[in-house]
Amino acid sequence: MKLEVLDTTLRDGAQGENISFSVGDKIKIVHALDRLGVDYIEAGIPASNPKDEMLFGLLEKETLLHAKIVAFASTVKKGVRIEDDKNIAATLAANTPAVSVFGKAHFSHTEDILGITGDENIELVKTTVAYFTQKGREVLFDAEHFFDGYRENPDYALSVLRAAKEAGAVRLVLCDTNGGMLPDEIAEIVRAVKSAMPDAVFGIHCHNDSGCAIASTVLAATEGTVHVQGSFGGIGERCGNADLTAVLPNLILKRGFESSIVLTKLKGIAGQIGEIANIRIHHNAPYIGRSAFSHKGGTHVDAEMKKAGAFMHIDPSLVGNESRLLLSEVSGRSTVLPYLQAIAPHLTKQSEETERITKKLKEQELLGYQYEGAGASFELLVKKELGLWKPHFNVIMYKLSDDYPEPDEELLANATVKIEANGKTALAAGEGNGPMNALYQALSKALASIYPELVRILMVDFKVRVIESKSFDAKTRVLIEATNGIENFTTIGVSTDMIKASFSALVDAYEYHLSKGDNI
Amino acid sequence: MKLEVLDTTLRDGAQGENISFSVGDKIKIVHALDRLGVDYIEAGIPASNPKDEMLFGLLEKETLLHAKIVAFASTVKKGVRIEDDKNIAATLAANTPAVSVFGKAHFSHTEDILGITGDENIELVKTTVAYFTQKGREVLFDAEHFFDGYRENPDYALSVLRAAKEAGAVRLVLCDTNGGMLPDEIAEIVRAVKSAMPDAVFGIHCHNDSGCAIASTVLAATEGTVHVQGSFGGIGERCGNADLTAVLPNLILKRGFESSIVLTKLKGIAGQIGEIANIRIHHNAPYIGRSAFSHKGGTHVDAEMKKAGAFMHIDPSLVGNESRLLLSEVSGRSTVLPYLQAIAPHLTKQSEETERITKKLKEQELLGYQYEGAGASFELLVKKELGLWKPHFNVIMYKLSDDYPEPDEELLANATVKIEANGKTALAAGEGNGPMNALYQALSKALASIYPELVRILMVDFKVRVIESKSFDAKTRVLIEATNGIENFTTIGVSTDMIKASFSALVDAYEYHLSKGDNI
Repeated sequence: MKLEVLDTTLRDGAQGENISFSVGDKIKIVHALDRLGVDYIEAGIPASNPKDEMLFGLLEKETLLHAKIVAFASTVKKGVRIEDDKNIAATLAANTPAVSVFGKAHFSHTEDILGITGDENIELVKTTVAYFTQKGREVLFDAEHFFDGYRENPDYALSVLRAAKEAGAVRLVLCDTNGGMLPDEIAEIVRAVKSAMPDAVFGIHCHNDSGCAIASTVLAATEGTVHVQGSFGGIGERCGNADLTAVLPNLILKRGFESSIVLTKLKGIAGQIGEIANIRIHHNAPYIGRSAFSHKGGTHVDAEMKKAGAFMHIDPSLVGNESRLLLSEVSGRSTVLPYLQAIAPHLTKQSEETERITKKLKEQELLGYQYEGAGASFELLVKKELGLWKPHFNVIMYKLSDDYPEPDEELLANATVKIEANGKTALAAGEGNGPMNALYQALSKALASIYPELVRILMVDFKVRVIESKSFDAKTRVLIEATNGIENFTTIGVSTDMIKASFSALVDAYEYHLSKGDNI
Repeated sequence: MKLEVLDTTLRDGAQGENISFSVGDKIKIVHALDRLGVDYIEAGIPASNPKDEMLFGLLEKETLLHAKIVAFASTVKKGVRIEDDKNIAATLAANTPAVSVFGKAHFSHTEDILGITGDENIELVKTTVAYFTQKGREVLFDAEHFFDGYRENPDYALSVLRAAKEAGAVRLVLCDTNGGMLPDEIAEIVRAVKSAMPDAVFGIHCHNDSGCAIASTVLAATEGTVHVQGSFGGIGERCGNADLTAVLPNLILKRGFESSIVLTKLKGIAGQIGEIANIRIHHNAPYIGRSAFSHKGGTHVDAEMKKAGAFMHIDPSLVGNESRLLLSEVSGRSTVLPYLQAIAPHLTKQSEETERITKKLKEQELLGYQYEGAGASFELLVKKELGLWKPHFNVIMYKLSDDYPEPDEELLANATVKIEANGKTALAAGEGNGPMNALYQALSKALASIYPELVRILMVDFKVRVIESKSFDAKTRVLIEATNGIENFTTIGVSTDMIKASFSALVDAYEYHLSKGDNI
């Protein structure tokens, strides 16, 4: 079966809390979705605000590879001639190849919410669909509250669909507007509707209020709603819409649908849209998350190595992702081994060193260390344990002072650091707008006086986490991501003293850099 | 039907990337789950690491209202007498009322991964289940890779289940270990298995790699797997486990299951677990998210007002949540007003103060403040703006020093604080295992010398967050939750200097306490 995809990230997705797209954002996202191979892009509601009106004006000038732009519109107002309806006029002015017209399919809602009779509602649907069809638009009819409506009054819900179809709608999109349906109910109703209207082409539009929007969409498509709607990252009002990043691979890889989607671009495009929209792709998002094909449990890692696929439901490269092994307290020697072998290729699972380092790792984690995000500190730890390490410098002392009121508005803290290396000692002072900045300045200066060729490392990211935060004597875990311009690397420090934890991560960062940097 | 719930947040959830529980965290989470009414709590793997071993020792001494603690164990190793198997012994030593035994139910995995024959695997399952049963443990058998295994070789998968049942397992838990199944396949296989073994009691354990774990669990339970497993917030390896925060209301509210779960506590307990585990409850999480019952779209808001329930699938109070109308940026004053009126009831939306404070708030948020979780600091801010505030003390100066190597193993930092209040000045010194502890000791002492009756406030929680962490000169936001024994309150500080941010939040905490404490 051929799958047809409508993305509503820019319309329904934009209704999500804390979501706000600029016109420029929207145009960039349109191109990203187009590159992915989406068939329809619902870009906004021309009648709703000047921003969307401007957007459609600009979109007319853009060239797309494949996708059709869709404008979203409600039905004509009762008692208004359609030529005089301002919202309809704005939708027409958007000049899109396709229009989504949404109308009620829930009998009691017509009276209770719209304040019109069921028959009047059907007339409005007919008039609107016919008008846009006659103006050359491809009309997708969104049957709002269809599933609840069908449960209450199936004959009425069906008669709304029939009216839309007769008036020219090319797709009848069944909407679970309040997101309350469970997937088996969706599947059952789709089956009934399909058999009542065997000639119609159906679509599905699910919300995630029951946490089942992906599943409901997949089951509906399996029953024959070949047009599916959803958003990237599942963004949307309340709990969001069906997340296309999981719906698409489920249908294409597991249900054999054909489609114009380039699935290998899925993770990359999701990342781009996330960046533009400032939506964080959750690390454990199915298919596209950083953790989606990662393994932490020792048993799982072991099994995955013996039989690829045992703990991966698909080959991650099919969606542009990759598998990773994580280090943690539950990891056994199998997890640790590949990391060790990267440093010392002769080691095996049976080596005494492998056992010792695995044990050491578990002890460190008990103290609050977490190496899965701190590969550079892990490498130093392993080299130390293997005797492959000698320090490039020793910290003899540091002294930090932080005063209030600060002597200078900008410089709140100052530090002195003394180190020794290559038989020399160096003492340097630093000041900064905070204690870590002051220590960083002092340490960098001291190191530069002994290693004049040393490239100063720069901080990329700095995270502080209070562990077991019951009081001020709690432990603090600090992660520092640094760059030497060639590679980024992350180190960790743990202490009840957040300054000490940070300084220790900083020292690791320089040590790691120096260990690589014998040739820098 | 009666639903039975096993929570595996602390076992399978702990396999999630970036998830790490301390022993203290685990015990707090056990009590939270117990208060919610969970039947079984899988707390960890006694054989896997010293932390879990310690945990089970401590859990033996805890009194629970309802829940049974479960230890997780693999089957006995081939060729080892079960009495001599170290992992089995560690599980037994955990002394839990119930044990989850996991064993392979996938024929080709037994040879390819375990390196044993299918029959040998069945023997190991039998021996292990029988042994724990004989030792008085309630055994839950986790049939690993059951669904994939059933698809490959249904007879073998069933014979593993039969062996576990005959050996004494009281629950046969069907696991979709790699999370790749879609919900209709799960339902179909559950139906077949139920009819093949009509006398067995089944459970379901789904992973979320297809984004369908909630739906699959709901459909399986509907088919009769009355024992359901999942984690809070859906945390777990790769894409996580079935999220109980959606599974439970779906089954209880929509499928009529009876259960010991106190659903009205759902949102509250989820929040507590999130806090302890440092997992952020996503704002659009079904049922429990802040946005789950919020409305932004004009049409939806309108409709919801005309017909309650039109855009809400359930009454939010059933899960301890509430509905919210989101107000746009232009109506900021409406958002702020109820908070202001709690302090100054005479204020209206038109008051000059309302406008001024709304503006001030936006300025502060631009600087990095977030008052949502810092009610005490917000109250101080409002009182200051309204002229209802005079400080109980002024900090004249503080001086902090933090040295390495520390003069004393335990005391890493020392501080001096000078304050004035009631026309007196007070100078005090403090030392501690970190800078904040030292400052806290010094400030408390100084205050006590002026307010001798002052009850020392205690820290309950302490969070440090680096904002826009591009380098060491980044801003830091600190939240301090404190208690004076009567109430808990939270304050905030923001600065490029994490010491200054922390100290400022600490000063706010004492100020807030003193403002309440004229009668303490």
